Amino acid sequence: MKLTNPLDMHLHFRDEAMLEFVAPFSAKEFKAGVIMPNLVPPLIELNALKAYKQRVLNACKQEDFTPLMTLFYKAYDKAFLQSLRNEIFAIKLYPAGITTNSVGGVSAFDIDELKPTLEAMSELEIPLLVHGETNDFVMDREASFAPIYEKLALHFPKLKIVMEHITTKVLCELVQSFDNLHATITLHHLLLTLDDVIGGKMQPHLFCKPIAKREEDKEALCKLAFSGFEKVMFGSDSAPHPQHEKECCGCAAGVFSAPVIISVLAELFTKHSNLNNLQKFISNNACKAYKLSFSKDKIITLEQKQWQVPSVYESKDKSLKIVPFMAGQILQYQAKLED
Amino acid sequence: MKLTNPLDMHLHFRDEAMLEFVAPFSAKEFKAGVIMPNLVPPLIELNALKAYKQRVLNACKQEDFTPLMTLFYKAYDKAFLQSLRNEIFAIKLYPAGITTNSVGGVSAFDIDELKPTLEAMSELEIPLLVHGETNDFVMDREASFAPIYEKLALHFPKLKIVMEHITTKVLCELVQSFDNLHATITLHHLLLTLDDVIGGKMQPHLFCKPIAKREEDKEALCKLAFSGFEKVMFGSDSAPHPQHEKECCGCAAGVFSAPVIISVLAELFTKHSNLNNLQKFISNNACKAYKLSFSKDKIITLEQKQWQVPSVYESKDKSLKIVPFMAGQILQYQAKLED
Repeated sequence: MKLTNPLDMHLHFRDEAMLEFVAPFSAKEFKAGVIMPNLVPPLIELNALKAYKQRVLNACKQEDFTPLMTLFYKAYDKAFLQSLRNEIFAIKLYPAGITTNSVGGVSAFDIDELKPTLEAMSELEIPLLVHGETNDFVMDREASFAPIYEKLALHFPKLKIVMEHITTKVLCELVQSFDNLHATITLHHLLLTLDDVIGGKMQPHLFCKPIAKREEDKEALCKLAFSGFEKVMFGSDSAPHPQHEKECCGCAAGVFSAPVIISVLAELFTKHSNLNNLQKFISNNACKAYKLSFSKDKIITLEQKQWQVPSVYESKDKSLKIVPFMAGQILQYQAKLED
Repeated sequence: MKLTNPLDMHLHFRDEAMLEFVAPFSAKEFKAGVIMPNLVPPLIELNALKAYKQRVLNACKQEDFTPLMTLFYKAYDKAFLQSLRNEIFAIKLYPAGITTNSVGGVSAFDIDELKPTLEAMSELEIPLLVHGETNDFVMDREASFAPIYEKLALHFPKLKIVMEHITTKVLCELVQSFDNLHATITLHHLLLTLDDVIGGKMQPHLFCKPIAKREEDKEALCKLAFSGFEKVMFGSDSAPHPQHEKECCGCAAGVFSAPVIISVLAELFTKHSNLNNLQKFISNNACKAYKLSFSKDKIITLEQKQWQVPSVYESKDKSLKIVPFMAGQILQYQAKLED
């Protein structure tokens, strides 16, 4: 069993020691990844973006991996966007304060205010990636963002809008209603509900934003992903935090799934769908949506061979420890680069 | 400002070193407390219950505090219940596995199965205290227990049934619909919603069972408590866990509110209601419902004087550290025993 050019369309690499540590997990198994810009400070200008891209490439070492860079959304003028069009893959919009390092995000979704930037993006064919949550009650935040997605989709029909890491049935339906709406789905939202996070004991390593929702939401996400529906792409939202910052009072949101993604997706799709649809979900749909092509294919083989996910990954100098998604669990497939 | 005979109608003292450490916080400020039986193993027989009561009394030292002991619900025959009627205040029913140390609880609510025990309790006037949650989705667990409460209330009209630590609007309405249904409300559920627990960063010290719900639920609880409604009593559900067991992977549910209860309630009731209703909520309603009387009054004075809640309480031998509810916050009232 093989996968060609797996793509992770939503990825947090962070910076410095964390970047060095986590980038290889994705770079080994993926052909490319969309790298999120919510650093401190966020990526809002060309030099910082280019320098970060170089650090990402350095961290990926010799792996055949293309970082698809994103700019942090704010009001930009067209000339500026034109000047860096070839350096960026997309622009990522965060509502202000909604998740890790998003304080500089958008605080009102006024069409007139957004118009100059979003029209320039339409014309330059720069996709808009959106963390779609309001500051409503935590279980309603995503669903209550749906009207904003609709408004954006209607007002900017030529803008490619990607609803990132969707978690609700409502958005599973919305992505099928507007041609210019696309979506990414994470691995962990195919597996978790709020019950897994706080229904038994409290599980900080499963705490993410948007928070995992209800069983019916999870089922809608699975149905959509497993169907291979062409406007839905895999985006892990793999987001590492050091173990001591997860297992504490006031832990940050984020699930570090990078080391297990392909292995777990293979298991899920062979059980509930088929590898053809996984190929679409993890690569072909994104290639089509974004008109991506690669001069050389990266082939990942899937061998049916059990392995146990480590309880923690530790950096070489032992300065960083990260607990991965599914720590300690037995997985059925091993993903390897084809010789 | 004074309170007479404050009662905490739902209290976890645990055992051994933890009991020694936490009991004085409640014993200093309350006249009596209903002590929960979910030890390991749970309290299901007389000798264990009497021995535990003695350990509780020892831990309360010289304070004027009456522990109201409870038995862990299972099928008991009438002769047994009669033999220990004078030793117990009530029987506490846990659905199996629903919260800390509840594995031996009830797994089906079949009236025929419950009947012998509950009828004996009716006849002996032993109240039934219930942790009312199903094993449904975490946000629905309490509301989906409402039909079970209705069934119990209808089938055992002479049984006093106390819906413990209610957290939903649904149960705020239910307590007003059946004469034999009563309820306790905690301090933390008057102040928290799920947003406080997982809406920003994840807060293990605010993680409790039942989990805090929506704003509309909190408002219904506040309205009911602040009104002084006679079938609603204060029960803190103060439930200590060592700091290292809260700030970890897989933390247990429970909020340690004992050190701040009277101070915070005084602030809430002077702001949103009045001290007369607080007197009802924290003492008179329970005295009436349970026909409680005390030969000597315990008077707590409330002085308007700021103090800061410690970030952590540490036992004398430094073996135990517990982070209290509202750690680090500034409170407006100091509660003291009248000279």
